[in-house]
Amino acid sequence: MKVFFNGSFIEKEDVKISPDDRGFLFGDGVYEVIRSYNGKFFMFSEHISRLNYSLKELKINYYETDKLEKIAKELLKLNSFENIDATVYIQITRGVAVRSLKFPGGDIMPTVYITLNKLNEHYYSYKNGISAFLVDDIRWKRCDIKSVNLLANVIAHNQAIDNGSEIGLFVKDGIITEGTHVGVFGVKNGSLITHPAGKEILPSITRKVIFDLCIKLEIPVLEQAINPENVFNLDELFVVGTSPEIAPVISLNKIPIANGKPGIISIKLQNAFNKLIKGI
Amino acid sequence: MKVFFNGSFIEKEDVKISPDDRGFLFGDGVYEVIRSYNGKFFMFSEHISRLNYSLKELKINYYETDKLEKIAKELLKLNSFENIDATVYIQITRGVAVRSLKFPGGDIMPTVYITLNKLNEHYYSYKNGISAFLVDDIRWKRCDIKSVNLLANVIAHNQAIDNGSEIGLFVKDGIITEGTHVGVFGVKNGSLITHPAGKEILPSITRKVIFDLCIKLEIPVLEQAINPENVFNLDELFVVGTSPEIAPVISLNKIPIANGKPGIISIKLQNAFNKLIKGI
Repeated sequence: MKVFFNGSFIEKEDVKISPDDRGFLFGDGVYEVIRSYNGKFFMFSEHISRLNYSLKELKINYYETDKLEKIAKELLKLNSFENIDATVYIQITRGVAVRSLKFPGGDIMPTVYITLNKLNEHYYSYKNGISAFLVDDIRWKRCDIKSVNLLANVIAHNQAIDNGSEIGLFVKDGIITEGTHVGVFGVKNGSLITHPAGKEILPSITRKVIFDLCIKLEIPVLEQAINPENVFNLDELFVVGTSPEIAPVISLNKIPIANGKPGIISIKLQNAFNKLIKGI
Repeated sequence: MKVFFNGSFIEKEDVKISPDDRGFLFGDGVYEVIRSYNGKFFMFSEHISRLNYSLKELKINYYETDKLEKIAKELLKLNSFENIDATVYIQITRGVAVRSLKFPGGDIMPTVYITLNKLNEHYYSYKNGISAFLVDDIRWKRCDIKSVNLLANVIAHNQAIDNGSEIGLFVKDGIITEGTHVGVFGVKNGSLITHPAGKEILPSITRKVIFDLCIKLEIPVLEQAINPENVFNLDELFVVGTSPEIAPVISLNKIPIANGKPGIISIKLQNAFNKLIKGI
């Protein structure tokens, strides 16, 4: 596998992350995962905007994000990924410096690592409906930054798996914020319900796509929190993200939601999403 | 500099952290910093106990922590650090695997990296008293685990520096939890006051040392939270940690604490600590 590392296209096994990389020492870095459908990127510039936001919020001085699409395209070519579905993984850390919480001087060069991944099979199975499990949202208070400080997500995801579910839904102060790596939407009486934007959740790109689709499909969207106890009064529940796209959630904590099958609006949105993808 | 990496003593520049290391991708790892005074370790076994706790809490399957002291000793020798003051840095991550929040299979080998650092000069200047700045404690809810998910600490520390102070003190729900990399103690009417143990703070080894010294010196210790507004009613404030040992805090948010000089009990404890160090 050819990857991009600090200015060069090299074999993945030749990448040498320094033990003084602040990504390794502190998780002092940010990332993005972007879908490539049959060689065509989806929402690349939106992902770059979010990457720029994360970099800015963490004061990581990397200003060449406008070059990343060209680099990602070259990687698709070098790895013969031009005719398959894949994800582009971009990670940028503050760089390499003597270990100190203090930001290093202005001449530090951020570490830039870009690789590709073939889509994992479970992403496809997600489309038929998945099971979710409620987990305590113990994350930090800046979930709007897409950083690699993901330990709370790792723990929560495995807690869900250990409890026989495929995905974890974070609960904070009695409301569902988002999933361990996805946004969460409820459906009630034909309207969507989802947590308002803010520091508690990631500004999901797929959420934005859904919002746009809802305008076209004339589906009202209410930005309000979902109470875990109210999930079983919902008509549908689904999660959204770059990798799983739109995945209906058919059970929560092993209890079926509504009739335990993907709901009408979830399927309607999946179809609209697929149509959108075909058009890129 | 010779370091220890995955079973071998090698030159630091030959260490090659994989971009698939979960430490780099998720901050999925733990660490310890241990003091070496003139070639002699201080509280090594206590640090190893805490390391074992962090590993256990995160379900990282590394069971050879009993070998780390011998390895650290060898590093002191290989680098001619036997007659100077230094710190040993130990980082253990879950290992290298295809990127997924899900824990990899049982055969994954944790990454083990150990290096030495000469003591930074500012650690010595800390002894004359430092300035602190209040920062919002936006960390996750498992601060008792010494993980490398340190982004909140990085941000807070730099916020303190940007505000002309040397150290940040975290405030959560209206009380001081701990410092960005230290424990916090107040002194009032001859008694020490410090945040109770729990998930909000790291189980500091130096805190334990202080507790023991206080028994000998007959100084009462109250485990209760300090309210930021009450800091200026205290007789003294100091922070403790493996690197700064005991450092008096002489100002908070640029306002002097008490008479703006290191207090009697802080100095008394520093002297007792120094005596303890000389005896190891």
